Amino acid sequence: MDKDRDSTVCVRSERGVLHLTLNRPEARNAMNAPMLAEIEHAIDTVRDDRAVRAIVLRGAGGHFCAGGDLKSMMTAGGGDAAANGADPIAAVNRAFGTMLRKVAQAPQLVIAICEGAVLGGGFGLACVSDIAFTHVDAKFGMPETTRGLPPAQIAPFVVERIGLTQARRLCLTGASFRGEQALRLGLVHECFSGEDELQAMLAATLAQLMQCAPLATAVTKQILLEVGRRDMDAVLDDAAQKFAASVRGSEAPEGIAAFLQKRAPRWAGASGLP
Amino acid sequence: MDKDRDSTVCVRSERGVLHLTLNRPEARNAMNAPMLAEIEHAIDTVRDDRAVRAIVLRGAGGHFCAGGDLKSMMTAGGGDAAANGADPIAAVNRAFGTMLRKVAQAPQLVIAICEGAVLGGGFGLACVSDIAFTHVDAKFGMPETTRGLPPAQIAPFVVERIGLTQARRLCLTGASFRGEQALRLGLVHECFSGEDELQAMLAATLAQLMQCAPLATAVTKQILLEVGRRDMDAVLDDAAQKFAASVRGSEAPEGIAAFLQKRAPRWAGASGLP
Amino acid sequence: MDKDRDSTVCVRSERGVLHLTLNRPEARNAMNAPMLAEIEHAIDTVRDDRAVRAIVLRGAGGHFCAGGDLKSMMTAGGGDAAANGADPIAAVNRAFGTMLRKVAQAPQLVIAICEGAVLGGGFGLACVSDIAFTHVDAKFGMPETTRGLPPAQIAPFVVERIGLTQARRLCLTGASFRGEQALRLGLVHECFSGEDELQAMLAATLAQLMQCAPLATAVTKQILLEVGRRDMDAVLDDAAQKFAASVRGSEAPEGIAAFLQKRAPRWAGASGLP
Repeated sequence: MDKDRDSTVCVRSERGVLHLTLNRPEARNAMNAPMLAEIEHAIDTVRDDRAVRAIVLRGAGGHFCAGGDLKSMMTAGGGDAAANGADPIAAVNRAFGTMLRKVAQAPQLVIAICEGAVLGGGFGLACVSDIAFTHVDAKFGMPETTRGLPPAQIAPFVVERIGLTQARRLCLTGASFRGEQALRLGLVHECFSGEDELQAMLAATLAQLMQCAPLATAVTKQILLEVGRRDMDAVLDDAAQKFAASVRGSEAPEGIAAFLQKRAPRWAGASGLP
Repeated sequence: MDKDRDSTVCVRSERGVLHLTLNRPEARNAMNAPMLAEIEHAIDTVRDDRAVRAIVLRGAGGHFCAGGDLKSMMTAGGGDAAANGADPIAAVNRAFGTMLRKVAQAPQLVIAICEGAVLGGGFGLACVSDIAFTHVDAKFGMPETTRGLPPAQIAPFVVERIGLTQARRLCLTGASFRGEQALRLGLVHECFSGEDELQAMLAATLAQLMQCAPLATAVTKQILLEVGRRDMDAVLDDAAQKFAASVRGSEAPEGIAAFLQKRAPRWAGASGLP
Repeated sequence: MDKDRDSTVCVRSERGVLHLTLNRPEARNAMNAPMLAEIEHAIDTVRDDRAVRAIVLRGAGGHFCAGGDLKSMMTAGGGDAAANGADPIAAVNRAFGTMLRKVAQAPQLVIAICEGAVLGGGFGLACVSDIAFTHVDAKFGMPETTRGLPPAQIAPFVVERIGLTQARRLCLTGASFRGEQALRLGLVHECFSGEDELQAMLAATLAQLMQCAPLATAVTKQILLEVGRRDMDAVLDDAAQKFAASVRGSEAPEGIAAFLQKRAPRWAGASGLP
């Protein structure tokens, strides 16, 4: 079901779940410009498709992602600022943040499976998931400053993920750490030690998700992501409008009827899960 | 001492503590419009009364609160948007957020006692307390999306309470969990397994609170709630003005004198606690 | 190497680390106006010196800092508001926040060593460090409200450090607690029980820091501190410019070359650590 053998991302859709697999195993799935574009394209493609309920991000070959491809970042545009004022190196760097925000704002539930290297840009990608699972032996870290560079497009998402207090220690010391520490830091939600355990964890989360109405879930995610970006009253005003639209939509009557009749709602069957 | 047998909230004032008990046990204290109004009224009544040092929120009949009364929400104004542009369903929904903000901003220390159902709007109410205690078997969750609705007025307060990383998982999967998990998530501050333990916990917290000057406590709460809503310099400027007013007020001279004389300050005796 | 025997702060620079020791042991290092000025001066002096990689804050005599000197705060300007509208008490109070923000924004890695009393302003100072170590028996707390005063310049930094949910409980009850609780609250990063353990902890952190490029570290800290203060797109735009400047600077070529050649970068040797 892979779209393209040469692509940097494998895309597979199965029973309401889009599986995106970073696919540069020879480079521990380090991100380059084509990979960013393919991730964004895959997210865009399902943006308005409520039949796709979740997006599972994983890396091929036992690593999640070792970061950004340093070579492509350093050589962008020959390294000189362009005459028109646009800086090609800044633009290449900024593209990481653009991709991360797009993943963060995907209407679906985004699940990241962290294993092997979860470094730099890979660390950032884990930070924008809704749910993250980690292998106990996964290696997390932001080694950028040891190479003389700031983790520029990553650090802001780390602060959003685990708060300034822990983010500053990790970003400023280049510390690396394993899965259980990632769990304690609140970077990920669950820790597994083998593929069977991971699959059971994933199946349980997806089964739970399938009970939730797709549009209501997407709307809830929009509300969550507004907090702190706007005044609280504005957030609540907007949320009330979204609530009213939901009441008048198709999901609420079905959901409430199913609840009162003690049966599964329509969308719970859509998953095809056994 | 209950004000009104028909009211949806029992109000009892005792030794500087206002006890608000949600009182619709037949509906696991699900909130309807009268209950919102009564909670707000009770909070308003003591707003300027520094003799009331704490507000204890609890539910009658072993449940904290099972959420919003779905029926009253769905049927508001016949379900149609009003001609004047005001949307009756949005208005009914928004009223929850208004109540929650009022509780959040009460000048007193607000203590929530979570037991039984702590769901939807009840979950939101726990999130705006200053201190929350939970029974080990309390059941927390936001099941809204399983009914086809977003937890519109609740999700923003969950983000404020436990951060986006945990909030998004809970809000987007409709997960339910027990007291010890609530403690690990930082949703509540302490966990109890029986009434005696709860009463000891409550007495210890109130005894500690009674050592704190009432006006200084109210001012401190104002300062805390401004962080992140305004520029940090503006927060600190305003806090300095509040500090100066406190120095010139009646509490600081008494508090400092008591400290130097190694005696309890005047307000410590006001509680009438044994 | 102490600059001045009469100063309220001992300043010692050694192998890339500036050691600032609060030095009023007779008052458990309570902060007064001269101490604030000396801390700020020391921070200013090394602001543009990338050879200074870390600042270690500690207190003389076994205590970190017992808070602000109450007497000097209460008696500022005779206690009356000045005719020109500037309030001398507010100004004296505000000076604490100014100092705390300066420490928070120091380009170097700031390490706080918490032991003995970590109260009031001392608590605030711990909150603006990048990394905090605590003795297991250190005593943390904000007793201000028990004296009739708000912890005006401290509470905002506590919210930034550990979030509103825990901050409100601590600030509003005047609770005091020990090192292990500080670790659980996320106020500090590690807990020690003796001087040898502390020195090993400190050496490990400094050795790790010395692997990180000094300018990249300073730039990363700037990026981190912008999150939440500006729109996320603005933060990322600015971070991309900083990244491009780093690529064109002297550290990145050295860092990447060292990485590819599997050798230590130039700055790693600058520490002189054994």
